Amino acid sequence: MSTFPRSYPMSGGDDQHSYINNSSYQIAAINSVREKTRQCIIEKLDLPLNSDLGTFRIADYGCSIGPNTFHVVQSIIDAVKFKQVDAKNEISLMPLEFQVFFNDQPNNDFNTLFRTQPPSSEREYFSAGVPGSFHGQVLPRNTVHIGHTSYTTHWLSDVPENVDDKNSPAWNKNYIQCNHSIEEVTKSYKAQFTKDMKRFLEARAEEIVPGGLMIVLGQCLPDGVPLFKTDQGILVDTIGDCLMDMAKSGLTSEEKIGLFTIPAYFPQFSELKREIEKNRSFTIETMESVRHPLEDIPLSNQFLISMFRAILSTIIKEHFGEDVIDELFDRVAKKLAKYPIDFKECEKNVTYFLLLKRK
Amino acid sequence: MSTFPRSYPMSGGDDQHSYINNSSYQIAAINSVREKTRQCIIEKLDLPLNSDLGTFRIADYGCSIGPNTFHVVQSIIDAVKFKQVDAKNEISLMPLEFQVFFNDQPNNDFNTLFRTQPPSSEREYFSAGVPGSFHGQVLPRNTVHIGHTSYTTHWLSDVPENVDDKNSPAWNKNYIQCNHSIEEVTKSYKAQFTKDMKRFLEARAEEIVPGGLMIVLGQCLPDGVPLFKTDQGILVDTIGDCLMDMAKSGLTSEEKIGLFTIPAYFPQFSELKREIEKNRSFTIETMESVRHPLEDIPLSNQFLISMFRAILSTIIKEHFGEDVIDELFDRVAKKLAKYPIDFKECEKNVTYFLLLKRK
Repeated sequence: MSTFPRSYPMSGGDDQHSYINNSSYQIAAINSVREKTRQCIIEKLDLPLNSDLGTFRIADYGCSIGPNTFHVVQSIIDAVKFKQVDAKNEISLMPLEFQVFFNDQPNNDFNTLFRTQPPSSEREYFSAGVPGSFHGQVLPRNTVHIGHTSYTTHWLSDVPENVDDKNSPAWNKNYIQCNHSIEEVTKSYKAQFTKDMKRFLEARAEEIVPGGLMIVLGQCLPDGVPLFKTDQGILVDTIGDCLMDMAKSGLTSEEKIGLFTIPAYFPQFSELKREIEKNRSFTIETMESVRHPLEDIPLSNQFLISMFRAILSTIIKEHFGEDVIDELFDRVAKKLAKYPIDFKECEKNVTYFLLLKRK
Repeated sequence: MSTFPRSYPMSGGDDQHSYINNSSYQIAAINSVREKTRQCIIEKLDLPLNSDLGTFRIADYGCSIGPNTFHVVQSIIDAVKFKQVDAKNEISLMPLEFQVFFNDQPNNDFNTLFRTQPPSSEREYFSAGVPGSFHGQVLPRNTVHIGHTSYTTHWLSDVPENVDDKNSPAWNKNYIQCNHSIEEVTKSYKAQFTKDMKRFLEARAEEIVPGGLMIVLGQCLPDGVPLFKTDQGILVDTIGDCLMDMAKSGLTSEEKIGLFTIPAYFPQFSELKREIEKNRSFTIETMESVRHPLEDIPLSNQFLISMFRAILSTIIKEHFGEDVIDELFDRVAKKLAKYPIDFKECEKNVTYFLLLKRK
């Protein structure tokens, strides 16, 4: 059954700060691998696409609230239908019916997801929302034909051990995320990541049928590069700096900041690969870095700040209270205007594409 | 695929006026047929309960936001598990996994449903929310083993033809529901009900596997009794009267009331039975009236008003605006205090229990 750990979904609703309106970085990556995803499905999906199959089931794990997830599942359906025609499969009296499971934490804004999904007249699938942490099994055994997830596997199921403990060598001090600057912190984050990736893959191995696929799109670091040297790492550290400034002004406290740490970890490419190779239920069909379409474009401060606000608001609100958000992101904007990120000098993260086939 | 007509879900959230806190009338009926439901499943469910079945799928159509739906599905699961043991079915290495589909309109408050469901550690099933009108197919063909619905089939997919047209003989005047006092109105409501019941049963026939069951609990009228003679009919007419009083005070207008009519229809028992018998995909295993546990208890005005407020607020707000609700139900309370419903004299509606088996 699914677990229900502490969870911090993307910002709900559809206002200017919502994830719906601030997820174009993610959709750009999704679009850039659309053709690759299509080819993978056509070449690697190892299932008889005839009426014996019954319902063709697709799951998007950590789907958030759209619209990205709707684009993804439509591409997958298009590819499966193309493969079905192309393979000149047994002509079935009953065409395949598709069912899509939109999975995310129980406190995800499913109401917005359902309200904004394509109308049934334009939708080729039956839609279902599945509340539950993808670190556990959320769907029955052997029922999913294609699983997908994008920009999710860096989220941990919990804050790593001791990183919020002032008396531990693994204390993350006033940093708000593992930026690889304190070795003991990195070790603790790594341990949690290893455990969570194992649980993620084990749960998917239960759910996905033999011959079925799991498609993962995500973000990691180049080998040897610490997070604090990347543009996104610098941005998160800047958010931490601004919280410290606010503590000095009495708007929050250093103690509170010392207890705060975001449960997300970006491994380096080889490190990630090793974790995936440990699982024996899937074969790795493809694991490669892909060019993010926005990779060489210096992103405006406004764009970056809006993106991180949509991602981090929920967790920051939970810890520091609703009131800090506007002030905090105003300060981040001012700080970045004064000390701009040097996009030419800083390192870039890696967008990776992973295709697993269930043995 | 599911349709998305105008829809008015029960009051969301969990405040004093929410459906969650005002659905004890419905749960009383559900509890009163629990043993009957259990027996029906044990005797009539015609499926091999072994590992060949794969996932055992249950759907609750028009589930609203709980807690009633959680009780219902747990009872169903308990009965299936008992039957499995009792029938000494093939010992399977893999015990049955249950998946429950909670269906309601896309604007139902699924966030509250998911937030208030039993924690995964106490839940024996994988949970999924299915947004869509049950007047259309919302789940794939041949995938549901037991369907359930309670207190839903009186809801129509749309306002019946002409009942809000001042120039038609089917105009419902200042009544806010079909209370059987105007013949042409009744005719129009009946036509819509016939169409919707047909669509409901056809959709379920697609979804439910041969040998599977559809359990329906609902409310209708005794043969020969018009709605306006029953306690609940009198209450709804009182709400209409209070709206008229408010129109006189300038708080709304007679014109607005003339355009307002609730898309719900309560057929008489034989009339309902005829509609169900028209469907050829199911056998009627049981159709009977059951004693509602609150049947002989004069319900307090407060109880009745809170119940109807939770059911009707959404549709009244949509037509008359948010502002009228408090004033309206205050007036209803005052009117009922002055002119109490004579529970001894008025007619009672019928609670019916229906068990269908998919041929």
